[in-house]
Amino acid sequence: MGKAAATKALLQERAMALFVRQGFDETTVAQIAEAAGVSQMTFFRHFPTKDAVVFDDPYDPAIAAIVAAQPLGLPAMERVRLGLLAAWGAVPETGDKATREKIRLVAGHPRLAACIRENNRRTEDLIVEALTGTGTVRLEARVAAGACLGGLTAALLDWAVEPDGQELGERMRAALAVMGESDSAARGER
Amino acid sequence: MGKAAATKALLQERAMALFVRQGFDETTVAQIAEAAGVSQMTFFRHFPTKDAVVFDDPYDPAIAAIVAAQPLGLPAMERVRLGLLAAWGAVPETGDKATREKIRLVAGHPRLAACIRENNRRTEDLIVEALTGTGTVRLEARVAAGACLGGLTAALLDWAVEPDGQELGERMRAALAVMGESDSAARGER
Repeated sequence: MGKAAATKALLQERAMALFVRQGFDETTVAQIAEAAGVSQMTFFRHFPTKDAVVFDDPYDPAIAAIVAAQPLGLPAMERVRLGLLAAWGAVPETGDKATREKIRLVAGHPRLAACIRENNRRTEDLIVEALTGTGTVRLEARVAAGACLGGLTAALLDWAVEPDGQELGERMRAALAVMGESDSAARGER
Repeated sequence: MGKAAATKALLQERAMALFVRQGFDETTVAQIAEAAGVSQMTFFRHFPTKDAVVFDDPYDPAIAAIVAAQPLGLPAMERVRLGLLAAWGAVPETGDKATREKIRLVAGHPRLAACIRENNRRTEDLIVEALTGTGTVRLEARVAAGACLGGLTAALLDWAVEPDGQELGERMRAALAVMGESDSAARGER
């Protein structure tokens, strides 16, 4: 990791610790910068806003590329589903506890919960762009991306507020399996 | 329609006309009340906020009930999908132009776009409640509702900003069909 990336990661870690301890609204950029031993100007070089600390997601372009790499012969919904499944397999499982704290913070804060949905929109756009680049009809790409991200977000927010001991990766894989069952043979009632 | 319902409908109609003509942020509650010939107090008896005029959705409980009425033997994702398909069939097709203007207003306004996603969360909760009431596992219900609403919302916002002449109902049915293709046999590349 280069020096800039290390500083960014440190800012994110210290910010999350402060958000969890004293609340998102109660934490100032000045406090985050101080906790990371840098100036506020350095903070703003890495993040345009305090919200951005929570939502900076380095995985989006990689996810879109993995989705586009799924077999062209499959329906759009299945390509997105399998792509997200592969992408989740590539995300390191470390820091499950930190992730849960972060998602819980977001789930319990109306403005941040709204942000996660806006953030999804950006991921959705990247997936749509990647899929249409391989010839998928635009509406199909849009719906498949919106549906798969909608299902994952629902599972993610649910995981944070009602933890059931399941690992995040396991939960995401279970959620993606549910989305793959839409027209499989009817199963017995549970 | 009773007198209260008529007043509410009139307030919504006049408000939407003002939003479309002069912008959401530029329209005050006082102007809406005046256009409908009622007092501001009457406005607030029907809507707690200006946002609520846009998002008041009388269909949610009906949608949840229709979803819960789908065959118990089907996977959760398919029950939600078929339920939404049936619910869209029950929504009157009148006012397509007014609906497009409304969705366009929402799609083009970051805070309202965030609201539509928050609003989805409430619909999602009602569907989850209805499904788990019929024995569906909670995570499956949550994911199926989140996925189907995510896919529909993506199609809806897309319909508003890039109209292609398709009727809204037709577009929604096409979107629901895309979500039903997740594990059907592989199709030819398009």
